[in-house]
Amino acid sequence: MKVAIIFGSKSDISKMKGAADILKEFNIEYKAFVLSAHRVPEKLSEVIDNVENEGYECIIAGAGLAAHLPGVIASQTILPVIGVPINAALDGYDSLLSMVQMPKPIPVAVVGINNSFNAGMLAIQILSLKYPELKECLIKYRSDMKEKFINENSEGVEI
Amino acid sequence: MKVAIIFGSKSDISKMKGAADILKEFNIEYKAFVLSAHRVPEKLSEVIDNVENEGYECIIAGAGLAAHLPGVIASQTILPVIGVPINAALDGYDSLLSMVQMPKPIPVAVVGINNSFNAGMLAIQILSLKYPELKECLIKYRSDMKEKFINENSEGVEI
Amino acid sequence: MKVAIIFGSKSDISKMKGAADILKEFNIEYKAFVLSAHRVPEKLSEVIDNVENEGYECIIAGAGLAAHLPGVIASQTILPVIGVPINAALDGYDSLLSMVQMPKPIPVAVVGINNSFNAGMLAIQILSLKYPELKECLIKYRSDMKEKFINENSEGVEI
Amino acid sequence: MKVAIIFGSKSDISKMKGAADILKEFNIEYKAFVLSAHRVPEKLSEVIDNVENEGYECIIAGAGLAAHLPGVIASQTILPVIGVPINAALDGYDSLLSMVQMPKPIPVAVVGINNSFNAGMLAIQILSLKYPELKECLIKYRSDMKEKFINENSEGVEI
Amino acid sequence: MKVAIIFGSKSDISKMKGAADILKEFNIEYKAFVLSAHRVPEKLSEVIDNVENEGYECIIAGAGLAAHLPGVIASQTILPVIGVPINAALDGYDSLLSMVQMPKPIPVAVVGINNSFNAGMLAIQILSLKYPELKECLIKYRSDMKEKFINENSEGVEI
Amino acid sequence: MKVAIIFGSKSDISKMKGAADILKEFNIEYKAFVLSAHRVPEKLSEVIDNVENEGYECIIAGAGLAAHLPGVIASQTILPVIGVPINAALDGYDSLLSMVQMPKPIPVAVVGINNSFNAGMLAIQILSLKYPELKECLIKYRSDMKEKFINENSEGVEI
Amino acid sequence: MKVAIIFGSKSDISKMKGAADILKEFNIEYKAFVLSAHRVPEKLSEVIDNVENEGYECIIAGAGLAAHLPGVIASQTILPVIGVPINAALDGYDSLLSMVQMPKPIPVAVVGINNSFNAGMLAIQILSLKYPELKECLIKYRSDMKEKFINENSEGVEI
Amino acid sequence: MKVAIIFGSKSDISKMKGAADILKEFNIEYKAFVLSAHRVPEKLSEVIDNVENEGYECIIAGAGLAAHLPGVIASQTILPVIGVPINAALDGYDSLLSMVQMPKPIPVAVVGINNSFNAGMLAIQILSLKYPELKECLIKYRSDMKEKFINENSEGVEI
Repeated sequence: MKVAIIFGSKSDISKMKGAADILKEFNIEYKAFVLSAHRVPEKLSEVIDNVENEGYECIIAGAGLAAHLPGVIASQTILPVIGVPINAALDGYDSLLSMVQMPKPIPVAVVGINNSFNAGMLAIQILSLKYPELKECLIKYRSDMKEKFINENSEGVEI
Repeated sequence: MKVAIIFGSKSDISKMKGAADILKEFNIEYKAFVLSAHRVPEKLSEVIDNVENEGYECIIAGAGLAAHLPGVIASQTILPVIGVPINAALDGYDSLLSMVQMPKPIPVAVVGINNSFNAGMLAIQILSLKYPELKECLIKYRSDMKEKFINENSEGVEI
Repeated sequence: MKVAIIFGSKSDISKMKGAADILKEFNIEYKAFVLSAHRVPEKLSEVIDNVENEGYECIIAGAGLAAHLPGVIASQTILPVIGVPINAALDGYDSLLSMVQMPKPIPVAVVGINNSFNAGMLAIQILSLKYPELKECLIKYRSDMKEKFINENSEGVEI
Repeated sequence: MKVAIIFGSKSDISKMKGAADILKEFNIEYKAFVLSAHRVPEKLSEVIDNVENEGYECIIAGAGLAAHLPGVIASQTILPVIGVPINAALDGYDSLLSMVQMPKPIPVAVVGINNSFNAGMLAIQILSLKYPELKECLIKYRSDMKEKFINENSEGVEI
Repeated sequence: MKVAIIFGSKSDISKMKGAADILKEFNIEYKAFVLSAHRVPEKLSEVIDNVENEGYECIIAGAGLAAHLPGVIASQTILPVIGVPINAALDGYDSLLSMVQMPKPIPVAVVGINNSFNAGMLAIQILSLKYPELKECLIKYRSDMKEKFINENSEGVEI
Repeated sequence: MKVAIIFGSKSDISKMKGAADILKEFNIEYKAFVLSAHRVPEKLSEVIDNVENEGYECIIAGAGLAAHLPGVIASQTILPVIGVPINAALDGYDSLLSMVQMPKPIPVAVVGINNSFNAGMLAIQILSLKYPELKECLIKYRSDMKEKFINENSEGVEI
Repeated sequence: MKVAIIFGSKSDISKMKGAADILKEFNIEYKAFVLSAHRVPEKLSEVIDNVENEGYECIIAGAGLAAHLPGVIASQTILPVIGVPINAALDGYDSLLSMVQMPKPIPVAVVGINNSFNAGMLAIQILSLKYPELKECLIKYRSDMKEKFINENSEGVEI
Repeated sequence: MKVAIIFGSKSDISKMKGAADILKEFNIEYKAFVLSAHRVPEKLSEVIDNVENEGYECIIAGAGLAAHLPGVIASQTILPVIGVPINAALDGYDSLLSMVQMPKPIPVAVVGINNSFNAGMLAIQILSLKYPELKECLIKYRSDMKEKFINENSEGVEI
């Protein structure tokens, strides 16, 4: 089980870390690449090829502004591509719309603005269709999460 | 390979048909349900349980306005949930934002406004990770699509 | 007279406190719950049932992002549900639209972004229909508020 | 049980009719007034006074554009005021924001754009706190609505 | 020549000061009032009457959120009312739309968000139609402003 | 009493007619010019000069898209300039923002989108400061308008 | 002097024709290509190479939705790329933001929504820097346009 | 090869510096002017004339709010005008729309909000059509940029 995480600049690491964190928690191998659809399109194509050949099964791509990265990746692979709109300007509306409004038949699976954690989680849900042991972990994660939430908030809170 | 398609009203059929069409083209079994997170929450929960038990592997959910349906489904299953924002008001901004801004750790994989075709395609890409024969079909589909596009537009167009 | 206040995280307390403050000022009993429509949907349903059984008459629900909480509550109770859109991203547009665009026949009574004070006040106005002594307090509150406002700003201000 | 429905022009009747329809279905008395906060402010004040004196318990106010009507009413009564943003321009964003962003301590309970049906339903939920027989009707309405929804959509739909 | 400046809270003084500053520079008498359309509507009506009777010829009204103040004033006077949308939330979109979309036949003359200086200047331009000596001052102001601008930026700037 | 009405194309006549209609009703002389800040800037300057020299006292300028016309006029005259944002694209947001956000010290008095009627009315309110007989007409107009409104809507309407 | 016009579907011809029309009027050779950044990325790269090799000096690219086409072209050429946002959904906001917010150092020169005429004109202005005879035509075009505008609107219009 | 950079206030220098920096790097002469379309329109016209006469070949214009500057310049020259929307309010939406929605036949070539660097780069791409040595530099710049990007990010990054 391997997931590739791609984004356009080292300065995005803090916003993309959520994906890595949850993948790590589920013991899923991942590799992060700094690549740009506009600056190094040929290198990007090369990496997409490698990623497919090396058995990665999901690509998480984060981008801000005119956020073409996930769509450009999606046009070159049949792996599911999960897009994380990064808030670099305009509260992230520009990156959200640049990602989500993809034309037929090249979808990007878009999650919330800056919400790379959910991108990682979505990758896990996708992979768990194929890997039964991962599915078990996911079921346990959800159940632990619920229990923890309820324990922490068991009583009506002081307000 | 089975995909569930859920939406809130029979009047949404025309907007959700794109998903069914592409699934059909790939010979993927699907079943469509009219259900509402707000009107029949208990029935929805029941169907989600059935869907999981009957081996569905992906859920496509379309909704307009305060489009809670995909998020509510996602909170009750670990299957990947693909959200289709339907343009019922405000050009679909309301449904887009109601779906895409899901909190941790419950993602919805959102595609373009009214773009149920891409939702179906994304489901196919997800399933093709597990089903090698589907992957072959998908590779062929992409390649045919490219060839067709190029054939239809081979010469510079008259304008 | 009892009002339930529900929101998704202890970190929202500062934004929801306005509701508690004004309810306290009117000597209305309230209880605050941290609950999430997406993380603990079953627990939420349980609390909604309890809240109804214990005689609460109004529910104030605050949420940010894809703010499904008030709508999900409204789908499970006939008590009036007052929604407070919390500004967690996009200036609160996402939570506002996720709440206000509820489909028929499940309304949420939405107040201003982060304006939990007005949510509390609306609850008081609703309850005062039934409780004459509360109505008296409300009339006095309005009248005092006006007097105070005029006293504080009686003369043209220096600018 | 009496509800006042106020809006700015006879041309809004089609958009406000939803409120009247559902009130009628619940046998709640209502009266509709065409009034404008900007054109006839003194007459509006007069009607608000009458409405209070004649025992109305809820006011539904619909308005488009710079939709001050519900807020101006709310500033002159302690009855709960339910606002219906009408889409007269800008998809209704102008009327939504003009209503929902009310300052402390004068709330308006805002429902969805053009959704006067939900305004009527909210009024019913509010009144049912005080009138047990209405509460019974509301419980039955919800239950009938669910049953009808499920019957109409019992089988997976053709798509 | 007298101008009234009205706004909803002492905390708005810093944003409304621009109007006072430019009026002072033109030796136009002004008086500032803290008043609220929602909190003290009767007092507001009283002040509007006084303002008219005391010979004020222009009213500048600043407000944020559901910014009804200028429109409510305009409905009660035939003096020109200049609206200043104050940025209290949503970057000021809410107050801008609440002011500018006034229905026929009650206009508000809206200037830029937080731009009370321009509101003052517009009042001066309006008054200068009637007062020739003010017109002379305005012509000189414009001419001085141009000269000053050109002097300060006469050479291409270093960048 | 003379008002100039300027807009960019004969195709805008239907949207600008409201201004002419109300000016006519008040027997105010007006002249309409089709001029463009971008296509014929020198001609525009020439007309602005003439307008000033011929004793016009107010300029109403309507424009769509990047609606520079009112601002460009305002930069070349000290007459009050009233801007009418015309909805040619983007629901009129582009023209509204292009007009209203004018920098210091060059204001445009902006009215509602497509609301040239209110622009004419605002011109009348401005002119009535100087012309007592116009003021009398305006007071009568308001009073007649109120009476007519109340007569037409005297009884609660059927809904 | 040769200009390439690229867009994603034959259905966009009507919206892109304005560019062809004005280029034709200036006797500038152009060729139109239907190509998609997402569907046929390799073919697009091939055409970009050809376009450069065959001496085209400007590329006009029109696209709707997640309008990546102009940016993807710009990443593969040093020719100036002019982007035309096409209104396919959301009034064209999605395509505008997807084009204009390009990251450093890959600009797209964006013109108005659906305004391919201005794209053609911008190409002409760019080419006229190099081709003096084109510059002469452009100067004459502007002058004729002004004369025509003034002739057509010489007298104040009837309104 | 000379480029003029025009903007409305010395306070914009930091946002416009990106254009100067990249022009400097390519040894292109530039001159920066502080000018305002609204405050000193005659001076602006004078400078535009000079700029044309002195052989400048491209004008970069940055502006915020109702950002008329680039459009007003474009109406007075046939040189390509590149617009930089500056974020002075509303996240820069006002300046973006004020620039990009220019009417026929007066285009402005708009780049991203605050992205004066891309404006400079676009000017370089335009000039390189005419100046072969500049074209060589541009090709080398792109190639160096790619190499540098790849070197800095050659290995998958730590995240």
